[in-house]
Amino acid sequence: MNEYPTALGASSRDAITLLGHDLARDVMGEVGFGELAFWLATQRRPEPGEVRVFEAVLAALADHGFTPTAMVTRLTYLSAPDSVQGALAAGLLGTGSRFLGVTEDTGRFLHDVLAGGRLPMDDAGWDALALRTVTAQRADGRFVPGLGHHVHKDGDPRTPRLMQIAREEGLFGPHLQLFAAIGRVHPQVLGKTLPLNGAGVCGAALADLGLPLPLLRGFALLARTAGLIGQLAEELRHPVANEIFLSVDLHNRSVPPDPWIPEA
Amino acid sequence: MNEYPTALGASSRDAITLLGHDLARDVMGEVGFGELAFWLATQRRPEPGEVRVFEAVLAALADHGFTPTAMVTRLTYLSAPDSVQGALAAGLLGTGSRFLGVTEDTGRFLHDVLAGGRLPMDDAGWDALALRTVTAQRADGRFVPGLGHHVHKDGDPRTPRLMQIAREEGLFGPHLQLFAAIGRVHPQVLGKTLPLNGAGVCGAALADLGLPLPLLRGFALLARTAGLIGQLAEELRHPVANEIFLSVDLHNRSVPPDPWIPEA
Amino acid sequence: MNEYPTALGASSRDAITLLGHDLARDVMGEVGFGELAFWLATQRRPEPGEVRVFEAVLAALADHGFTPTAMVTRLTYLSAPDSVQGALAAGLLGTGSRFLGVTEDTGRFLHDVLAGGRLPMDDAGWDALALRTVTAQRADGRFVPGLGHHVHKDGDPRTPRLMQIAREEGLFGPHLQLFAAIGRVHPQVLGKTLPLNGAGVCGAALADLGLPLPLLRGFALLARTAGLIGQLAEELRHPVANEIFLSVDLHNRSVPPDPWIPEA
Amino acid sequence: MNEYPTALGASSRDAITLLGHDLARDVMGEVGFGELAFWLATQRRPEPGEVRVFEAVLAALADHGFTPTAMVTRLTYLSAPDSVQGALAAGLLGTGSRFLGVTEDTGRFLHDVLAGGRLPMDDAGWDALALRTVTAQRADGRFVPGLGHHVHKDGDPRTPRLMQIAREEGLFGPHLQLFAAIGRVHPQVLGKTLPLNGAGVCGAALADLGLPLPLLRGFALLARTAGLIGQLAEELRHPVANEIFLSVDLHNRSVPPDPWIPEA
Repeated sequence: MNEYPTALGASSRDAITLLGHDLARDVMGEVGFGELAFWLATQRRPEPGEVRVFEAVLAALADHGFTPTAMVTRLTYLSAPDSVQGALAAGLLGTGSRFLGVTEDTGRFLHDVLAGGRLPMDDAGWDALALRTVTAQRADGRFVPGLGHHVHKDGDPRTPRLMQIAREEGLFGPHLQLFAAIGRVHPQVLGKTLPLNGAGVCGAALADLGLPLPLLRGFALLARTAGLIGQLAEELRHPVANEIFLSVDLHNRSVPPDPWIPEA
Repeated sequence: MNEYPTALGASSRDAITLLGHDLARDVMGEVGFGELAFWLATQRRPEPGEVRVFEAVLAALADHGFTPTAMVTRLTYLSAPDSVQGALAAGLLGTGSRFLGVTEDTGRFLHDVLAGGRLPMDDAGWDALALRTVTAQRADGRFVPGLGHHVHKDGDPRTPRLMQIAREEGLFGPHLQLFAAIGRVHPQVLGKTLPLNGAGVCGAALADLGLPLPLLRGFALLARTAGLIGQLAEELRHPVANEIFLSVDLHNRSVPPDPWIPEA
Repeated sequence: MNEYPTALGASSRDAITLLGHDLARDVMGEVGFGELAFWLATQRRPEPGEVRVFEAVLAALADHGFTPTAMVTRLTYLSAPDSVQGALAAGLLGTGSRFLGVTEDTGRFLHDVLAGGRLPMDDAGWDALALRTVTAQRADGRFVPGLGHHVHKDGDPRTPRLMQIAREEGLFGPHLQLFAAIGRVHPQVLGKTLPLNGAGVCGAALADLGLPLPLLRGFALLARTAGLIGQLAEELRHPVANEIFLSVDLHNRSVPPDPWIPEA
Repeated sequence: MNEYPTALGASSRDAITLLGHDLARDVMGEVGFGELAFWLATQRRPEPGEVRVFEAVLAALADHGFTPTAMVTRLTYLSAPDSVQGALAAGLLGTGSRFLGVTEDTGRFLHDVLAGGRLPMDDAGWDALALRTVTAQRADGRFVPGLGHHVHKDGDPRTPRLMQIAREEGLFGPHLQLFAAIGRVHPQVLGKTLPLNGAGVCGAALADLGLPLPLLRGFALLARTAGLIGQLAEELRHPVANEIFLSVDLHNRSVPPDPWIPEA
């Protein structure tokens, strides 16, 4: 007979446990939500400083205004107001490679560079490693994840702030070190100065917190769930989705079919 | 030209604001994630006591072990490991009327009973209102939302705990009052004692916090997003989804088609 | 030990069956896709006339241009191009009560009116039943599902066409009869003439085909899946999603938070 | 002012067009559903032989019994029966890289091998190309997509059947040629004989039909939508989802947390 082991929620007639603790007595009222999310993902309870950095990341990613995902949640709710879960799920489905994927890509990239090597001892060492890294990416014709932003061209205000918080909490680890060094040295290689973007620094910070790399995107999704609830709450009172829909529908223009011809 | 007003995220070349505050300076590192989620949903910053009750609710709803939604997230990840967002979205789609819907149903139900009426002054008054309420539901052949649990038949441990936390924070409002009174009086009407369940008390507490009723289900979804990330993290290291799949697939039994005959 | 019976797909080392038939020999190359979808849903193979009516319904519902669901699929693909399944799923999530839900609502409504009663013998009988039906809805302050269209105010061209096809195939059954009669008599009650809309007539036709009422929305979803693939194919070659996104993002206007105040 | 051109659905007060044709007059009742899906994706109307091959592919992919995606749709419906669209969308989200992704991977792989080269003139030429292809994959330590099946170890019955249908319709093009040749020559390289699987041959056939490669997965999703409606229809009458849920939930075993330790 199969058995399915789990350290997450379990319940008997009288008790409910979560992560080996009594849910009602030890978790409810005692553990903040960011702390709990971290704990669930790692099965270890984070330190207060870790929680602060983690929650700063979630704040940085929660809402970016009228992004495609926000529009998707509002339009889905317009079309199917009977299903709040559908509207949120639809919005989350846009959290892929292009928008919030940067967080995961940056964390993984920095981790791969660091994997197996000895860590530099000082800033000069970090700069040297960063220089090799950026040079190698360029030689391969690849971007450096986390570098560049289409709006915050002179600097993304989230980046220095998250670095500062991580320093305050003694959590400015190797991923952030390398990311900061990339920020210092890349102009030598690329011939122009690009900002370290907020999604990227979040990936670096999450990696320094020791969170599972394959799930970094998951934390962006968690942050965004809170943001999308905010979008729905605003849509309920100050709706814009129908206006967005009409702005497109009223300006569609019928054109003849353009038959698809496969490339040889 | 259309304009789309929003009080949520906004950014210019140099600055990012969220809810009218400077995101980097005033939100990151300063605002916990539960607090931020509350703020995003209501556009008002909650008091510390409100945050504690709110986060206790989120803890109560975050993970209930191998629920259908947890199984769905694990099975979807098994089948499409390239899309963490798809696995989480699929799990959230199960957060509907039957499982986590109780939270919303209870909040709405209590609110409808209270709407427009004068609030009772004391426990006797609450009991009388609860008695009328349960009696009316029964006469209509309808269940009282939040009453009964298929496992915790002698009492759901989350219920007294959340009530205690709400009292400690001075947030034991009319929805919790009425819900508690229903717990006291329903045996007189129904002839048996049922537990006030955890999903229900969460709905009562969220309603007392003044959160938007049409979005109560959204908070269950937020809590569950954290739980589902935990499920994925566990699945990554101690996978069970393939075993679950095989336990079904290996015991399927082919039967002849059973043609559907519409009812007259 | 549990066993899970099914009449759908099954396979052994050497053979694959579907609905009790050899998939490779008897289904592939022999059964059209509309026919197969009908067969899967009802576990009975439809007659050619039933297939024609069914496929006419699917054609009527497949694509309606820049609907919210089409926009959602395009925007999700813009944001997460790595996941075609996510873009399609997101679009389908908008197929709820407001847009395509009319199909299901109309089918259910007509079925409920007909349930258990004796069927009229002639047009006069149908008109009398329709008159009672519309009058009762009006007295209850409820709309008649399938009546009215915000664009095709003088008549939805799909309605007479689908009725004609159903007549040609001898499948103009009681649901279509009642729906047609509602079209004739409602001006007497409502004091104005509204069109019978295409989504509604599709629901009536699907009900007359004996398809399961709780899944009528499912057929709208099937039709729409084909339409959304068309939307994605067009987006790949003639993209508009980014322009739609920018048309909103560039015209957002930051406003102060508007704190939510719960109704008493 | 933006304008959004489209060749898909468009409507005016009096008329509805789809792909440049009058929907009611020229499409409804005249165009089968498989044919329409092809047309929507390519903006060209397929020939009858193309429709037959296309619908054979859809039949091959529609339902494979108790797959993870089928289980997901049933479990989601159990949990949220109010949202058929959510149950279908959840199931589709599992149509990713592992299960139905093979169709797309195989089509793309064959296309990449063929791209830009001169096509072989005879079977010997195809065999030589296939030999180079399999050898190169092996040298890179990569699998050949579409080769191998965990159940149909001696041959997948869908493969010869689809090849036969394509031959009958004069649509046995270069992708199928190369795929067949891979089936003939791979034992020389791999030292064992693997079956050409059904998902792979479907990808080859879709590529030969000239369908857009980035959307090949979309056709698997379309086929699967029909299959998942069948799964829901069966679940409605012969439910098994609750039994599946309980078979897991009753055999969960609580284990202590296993803290995540990041790799260095």
